[in-house]
Amino acid sequence: MTTIGFIGLGVMGAPMAANLVAAGYDVVGFNRSPAKVEALVAAGGRGAGSVAEAVVGADVVITVLPDSPDVEEVVLGDDGVLANAEPGALLIDMSTIRPDVARRLAEAGAERDGGGVRVLDAPVSGGEQGAIDGVLSVMVGGEAADFDAARPVFDVVGGTVVHVGPAGAGQTVKAANQLIVAGTLELVSESLVFLDAHGVDLESAVRVLSGGLAGSAVLEKKAPGMLARDFTPGFRVDLHHKDLGIAAAAAREAGVATPVGALVASLLGSLRAQGHGSLDHTALLLQTELLSGRRRPEAEGGSKGEKAD
Amino acid sequence: MTTIGFIGLGVMGAPMAANLVAAGYDVVGFNRSPAKVEALVAAGGRGAGSVAEAVVGADVVITVLPDSPDVEEVVLGDDGVLANAEPGALLIDMSTIRPDVARRLAEAGAERDGGGVRVLDAPVSGGEQGAIDGVLSVMVGGEAADFDAARPVFDVVGGTVVHVGPAGAGQTVKAANQLIVAGTLELVSESLVFLDAHGVDLESAVRVLSGGLAGSAVLEKKAPGMLARDFTPGFRVDLHHKDLGIAAAAAREAGVATPVGALVASLLGSLRAQGHGSLDHTALLLQTELLSGRRRPEAEGGSKGEKAD
Amino acid sequence: MTTIGFIGLGVMGAPMAANLVAAGYDVVGFNRSPAKVEALVAAGGRGAGSVAEAVVGADVVITVLPDSPDVEEVVLGDDGVLANAEPGALLIDMSTIRPDVARRLAEAGAERDGGGVRVLDAPVSGGEQGAIDGVLSVMVGGEAADFDAARPVFDVVGGTVVHVGPAGAGQTVKAANQLIVAGTLELVSESLVFLDAHGVDLESAVRVLSGGLAGSAVLEKKAPGMLARDFTPGFRVDLHHKDLGIAAAAAREAGVATPVGALVASLLGSLRAQGHGSLDHTALLLQTELLSGRRRPEAEGGSKGEKAD
Amino acid sequence: MTTIGFIGLGVMGAPMAANLVAAGYDVVGFNRSPAKVEALVAAGGRGAGSVAEAVVGADVVITVLPDSPDVEEVVLGDDGVLANAEPGALLIDMSTIRPDVARRLAEAGAERDGGGVRVLDAPVSGGEQGAIDGVLSVMVGGEAADFDAARPVFDVVGGTVVHVGPAGAGQTVKAANQLIVAGTLELVSESLVFLDAHGVDLESAVRVLSGGLAGSAVLEKKAPGMLARDFTPGFRVDLHHKDLGIAAAAAREAGVATPVGALVASLLGSLRAQGHGSLDHTALLLQTELLSGRRRPEAEGGSKGEKAD
Repeated sequence: MTTIGFIGLGVMGAPMAANLVAAGYDVVGFNRSPAKVEALVAAGGRGAGSVAEAVVGADVVITVLPDSPDVEEVVLGDDGVLANAEPGALLIDMSTIRPDVARRLAEAGAERDGGGVRVLDAPVSGGEQGAIDGVLSVMVGGEAADFDAARPVFDVVGGTVVHVGPAGAGQTVKAANQLIVAGTLELVSESLVFLDAHGVDLESAVRVLSGGLAGSAVLEKKAPGMLARDFTPGFRVDLHHKDLGIAAAAAREAGVATPVGALVASLLGSLRAQGHGSLDHTALLLQTELLSGRRRPEAEGGSKGEKAD
Repeated sequence: MTTIGFIGLGVMGAPMAANLVAAGYDVVGFNRSPAKVEALVAAGGRGAGSVAEAVVGADVVITVLPDSPDVEEVVLGDDGVLANAEPGALLIDMSTIRPDVARRLAEAGAERDGGGVRVLDAPVSGGEQGAIDGVLSVMVGGEAADFDAARPVFDVVGGTVVHVGPAGAGQTVKAANQLIVAGTLELVSESLVFLDAHGVDLESAVRVLSGGLAGSAVLEKKAPGMLARDFTPGFRVDLHHKDLGIAAAAAREAGVATPVGALVASLLGSLRAQGHGSLDHTALLLQTELLSGRRRPEAEGGSKGEKAD
Repeated sequence: MTTIGFIGLGVMGAPMAANLVAAGYDVVGFNRSPAKVEALVAAGGRGAGSVAEAVVGADVVITVLPDSPDVEEVVLGDDGVLANAEPGALLIDMSTIRPDVARRLAEAGAERDGGGVRVLDAPVSGGEQGAIDGVLSVMVGGEAADFDAARPVFDVVGGTVVHVGPAGAGQTVKAANQLIVAGTLELVSESLVFLDAHGVDLESAVRVLSGGLAGSAVLEKKAPGMLARDFTPGFRVDLHHKDLGIAAAAAREAGVATPVGALVASLLGSLRAQGHGSLDHTALLLQTELLSGRRRPEAEGGSKGEKAD
Repeated sequence: MTTIGFIGLGVMGAPMAANLVAAGYDVVGFNRSPAKVEALVAAGGRGAGSVAEAVVGADVVITVLPDSPDVEEVVLGDDGVLANAEPGALLIDMSTIRPDVARRLAEAGAERDGGGVRVLDAPVSGGEQGAIDGVLSVMVGGEAADFDAARPVFDVVGGTVVHVGPAGAGQTVKAANQLIVAGTLELVSESLVFLDAHGVDLESAVRVLSGGLAGSAVLEKKAPGMLARDFTPGFRVDLHHKDLGIAAAAAREAGVATPVGALVASLLGSLRAQGHGSLDHTALLLQTELLSGRRRPEAEGGSKGEKAD
């Protein structure tokens, strides 16, 4: 039986690990807060008290962490993944981080003293529900042979699994994914406020918009929560803001003009600056309302996510 | 048998009329260029030599025309629809026009001397393929009773048919639809150029992006043509530019902030100013390439749609 | 002695008329609210009870009115300027209106029954202080000979007076002026909030920015009021919003890409939608603060201009 | 007599050094390309063959270098400024670099073994002509006492010299300066193309715009070159692009919304991506023309700066 060391049991990691347990894998989970580890154990996995304990003896190590520095510390740190992984083990980083960091991890794995570790960058899209349902979109960068080896694992957590290129390519595609998602959320927000101002019934509008060329996963999966003014994350503004920073740096590096991407990043950053970093990214709706004079910040207490701040 | 006077047999109107014929309606078609009328006759419809001829005796009149002035002329003109329609006839304008013009048509219909004409604004989304397949998204404004009466007709041409509010509401929702579509095309364009600059395989990227929260009808239906550099319309930049003018005016009127919508409209207008008005709106990709130094205008001869200029 | 009929004695018109009186002209003023007329009389001018009374017998008629419809009514209306002006009189419209309306006025003047009226469009920039000091920037469209004839009058109210082209050209330049002014106000707002967030002393910063390539009339004349948080108009957001609508329409008509202009117009429209239409346009600072989470709308009572709302 | 070690004799540094020589200072210059050093010697200065040679014995060291890494290397490098400066010497970095690097240099100077070096960040604005004329705007961060000590030197090269705050504050103000300058260049570009499309005489327009609230140093000093289509630098697009990267990072760090700044940075980056990095930043005009369909890239050979590419 394949043993998987699973590091990072947050909103996304926990259901992914649970699905791997359910699929018959031997999953050894580690998380900074022990409560998350206990939940995995209750679901049939095993618990680890440290990164090292999760990694030693594992055939596959999966990391699902918030940001580049977290991954660097866990993978490259003194008693981290590379220090403890078995020779020939497969490290799959499913966090969303900088493409250059992903490339660096792949190099570090290949060059490790005492036998290389194969590394894939495999960030995901699809949200908490997609993780629970095991239908995430997984964008994978790395060697084709390593992708093939990891395929059975990916098929448990993902619905659409694609090898998009060499090390770092998965993160590059994820950066584009985040640009499109934020932009679509903003377009939907602007449209909903526009329609509301014109007295159109929003539920009907969402239904008919979804059926034509304006249809999108954002409209289908996120608009209902927006209409209900439920901004409980889901995916936090803070994290999306971080991701758009990655996209902006990568676009700048490649000399690609992303004028709309740049404006959307500015608006999402503004949402965060206004203190909404802990809300779901659909809270872009709040900002459009504010900019359109249709909502006063003091009235915000009424929306669901704000309580979660 | 219900008789339908059908005015405007262009890229969208022709397949819609043909589907109505196939569904058993008695369709009397009129178009400025007689070749289009002959095609309808060949498909089993009847031909008319004037607006009046198409309208007299019809239970339902459908108009599918390019812009507000065209509809005003055909409907309100001296020997137009209202001058000739039977009392109690149903006029369904499926063009994309200004919401205020749609409201004016509804009033003119209601107040007509010699018996009112019931008017619905019912613009569509879904493109030529959607029209051919009879799965358009139809956003309808007007009286609920009139919507119910028109429902059988809508069900022939549409897949998603929704009554969104009073007269004009259909056009308002269509304006929002066009804002979202143009914005999504721009986001996809920026992303494809970004990914190409980073050496990512674009077909793989489109596949995996489509599976997650970045997924959209644009990505599914339009990205393949963009990757093939086929900009044959489809839906012309000129028309989309017109539609965004409607959206901008309606947003301004309602005092709604649409910063991203405004920028997207500016970029689409720029594409038109560069002489690409006759290309499909997916040609936003060309502009992102140009702005990113990845394409020179003189090389444009190579793409399919340019030949159509 | 030249007699000038002066219609519109508002924030700008009143000091302009007073300067013409002081320069020795016989000025007959009319305004809807009689208090303004009395003020002119107190300053040595004469009062009129109607447009007709101000126009009959005048060599020159000057109009300084809020918007295109006002000017159309006053000039083209039943008992308006053209109905009453002496043959050969010179009509100088110094309002900021649509270029196409300016051209229409010029044609109407030329074609008037009973002898033509020569028409110039001559909008101004420089604000209330510039009007008081007689140093306005005057951008004049129309016939060169008419410009020469009007020159002595312009020299009383203006510091920089330039004939920029045929009828309408003055308004076109004014539209560009308003685009630049709004954009510069937004750039200065973004910069001040940026510098404040970094703990830089704003007065020192404004001083040194003014001395280099970032220097501008906006920075010199408007930044002090912004730092003092005094948003008493001056020039109201409502009017600037109207002007940017003119600029946007003219840019669209000419097929010119103004991406930054479009975004700035959207932001100014947003300021108005938030209920700040009666504040000075420098209130763009408030919006940047709001978007940066550095100010809550409820705290606005403290700034000077808000009282004027 | 005060001895000044002057490192970096480029477009800006050379005339600044020459002015210091003319003002009676003993200037020892170093530059990577010896030709620049010879020019300084010809002007009455002394030449150095290395950073160390320029720094040893100097009371004041001035650096004018392209970017943060250059300054880090020259100041912090093995045989760099701090390794060789006299105890108590004053280091004035007049390059445009990242505020955090400026703060780091100040700390490194204070903590230097063998006696501290006092450090000021003092970037400038005003362009080559301002440097030649000795009327630069100098924005200074650091200790007040050090600013007072450096004042005589600043007064030789600058017209407006202001102490804006602690270490790094000079660079922060310079970042804002660059945001305003780029934005104003873009606004002027959009306006000129707009006016040209409407057939307005551009020289007249620039004259009258300069006299009102739209007036700016950009309009006064840069518009003539733009009208003449002379894009010889001056200040290169590449460098301005670098500076806007600094501004964007600093705005992001502070959580300040700069939507227009973000869009302008994207447009300037696009200009660079199109291969115009070596042109003067006024070449933003070219891009607006391109986006407005009023210029084809192949026609660019005709403009002056392109030859310099």
